[in-house]
Amino acid sequence: MYSFNFTAESSSNGVVERDFTVGDVPGVLWSPASGATDRAPLILMGHGGGSHKKHPAMAGRARLLVTGCGFHVAVIDAPGHGDRPRTAHDEAEIAELFRARAAGEPEGPIVVRYNEHLAELAVPEYQMTLDALQQLPEIGADGPVGYWGINMGTAIGIPLVAIEPRITAAVFGQHWPDALAEKAKQISIPIEFDLQWDDEHISREKGLALFDAFASKEKSLHVNSGKHKDLPRFEADSAVRFFARHFGPAVTPSA
Amino acid sequence: MYSFNFTAESSSNGVVERDFTVGDVPGVLWSPASGATDRAPLILMGHGGGSHKKHPAMAGRARLLVTGCGFHVAVIDAPGHGDRPRTAHDEAEIAELFRARAAGEPEGPIVVRYNEHLAELAVPEYQMTLDALQQLPEIGADGPVGYWGINMGTAIGIPLVAIEPRITAAVFGQHWPDALAEKAKQISIPIEFDLQWDDEHISREKGLALFDAFASKEKSLHVNSGKHKDLPRFEADSAVRFFARHFGPAVTPSA
Repeated sequence: MYSFNFTAESSSNGVVERDFTVGDVPGVLWSPASGATDRAPLILMGHGGGSHKKHPAMAGRARLLVTGCGFHVAVIDAPGHGDRPRTAHDEAEIAELFRARAAGEPEGPIVVRYNEHLAELAVPEYQMTLDALQQLPEIGADGPVGYWGINMGTAIGIPLVAIEPRITAAVFGQHWPDALAEKAKQISIPIEFDLQWDDEHISREKGLALFDAFASKEKSLHVNSGKHKDLPRFEADSAVRFFARHFGPAVTPSA
Repeated sequence: MYSFNFTAESSSNGVVERDFTVGDVPGVLWSPASGATDRAPLILMGHGGGSHKKHPAMAGRARLLVTGCGFHVAVIDAPGHGDRPRTAHDEAEIAELFRARAAGEPEGPIVVRYNEHLAELAVPEYQMTLDALQQLPEIGADGPVGYWGINMGTAIGIPLVAIEPRITAAVFGQHWPDALAEKAKQISIPIEFDLQWDDEHISREKGLALFDAFASKEKSLHVNSGKHKDLPRFEADSAVRFFARHFGPAVTPSA
């Protein structure tokens, strides 16, 4: 068993932000101020490597979903990230990543194995979080649930979605197929997948191979010119429309 | 010199439709009923093979652009299409395409060479049409001009955009690189490109090669699962948002 508690609440520009803990995992739930108690779909998000649950990329995407669609949005800190302690293993892997980066060596092999390790820990945490959030009357046990995570959010999200039937639409992108393609083959829900055409870390062939692996009848790939970190802002708008298309928005999102 | 004449006008649900001829080429111009005389961007569209200027796919896309963005939209019949006569060469190529299709042979080589022939005729016709439309006060000589054409509309549009500096953003897709990649290398304006992942006519490698050929610093590829004719409707909405992003809508398009 786990405990679930709200630990803080604030509100700004139409969005209610509630911090929570589930077991010893800290998370945040964003909801529409005008309808925080109305039943609406939930989007679980996963943050990127070296980032945390309230990074501006997370808060910005949440705002689009909450104010654009009337959805609830939740993120938890990944193991070793945000408000969570780092283990000796975390420290060693991060040091190895920085060493490789400084030496101009490929980062991929380190990111792949470290993210795979974190995903093994994070998947049950996301399931526990979903169990807890579905107890809230404004989310409920039978409403639509989506998942949105790029980079490390994909490394955690693909293994999660592969075994979690409550999640019925997902946005992924920008990771390697090495540890993920076999799990992607178990996924058949609608997906949207982002890839950068000039990614200096993930080759086109690797990126396309991961997209290709999904068993989904309905899948979309969005490729944009530019390097790894140049993923355009408009892809966040596109992801919001993807969820609105599948879950039906409470509010019609604007462009 | 050429003559330009409006030959018919009607209006429905906020869209004014004006038929025109430029030389002996028939075309249609769709404009906002509420602002047909207001200066606004122009999107030139190219229809698909075996289709015509007022095919529902054209009228539907025009309606999205006119009512969603307040833009003007024009299409002309391609040579041998719509209200235009077929030559003996047209008849022979169409017969050859149907023969190959019935025999289960690849259609690509015939479509590529026939569309290349039609593009040679159509490119100066589009330029003449643009010359004429830019004389209209509601379009003008210095406003933004876009191009949107998939399939044969891409076979005509890539050679057009390669030599036409007045066009500054374009949506293409679903064609072979054989006759087009060299011309795509001359194009550096922002583009959005559609490709079907399970296209029975155009291989993934060929489709990706054509996208890769564009010299554009800003280019986006949208791949969707499904066969050649399964291009999802939501890609039309995406193309509209693409033009709105680059030309600034008179009206904010809804999802």
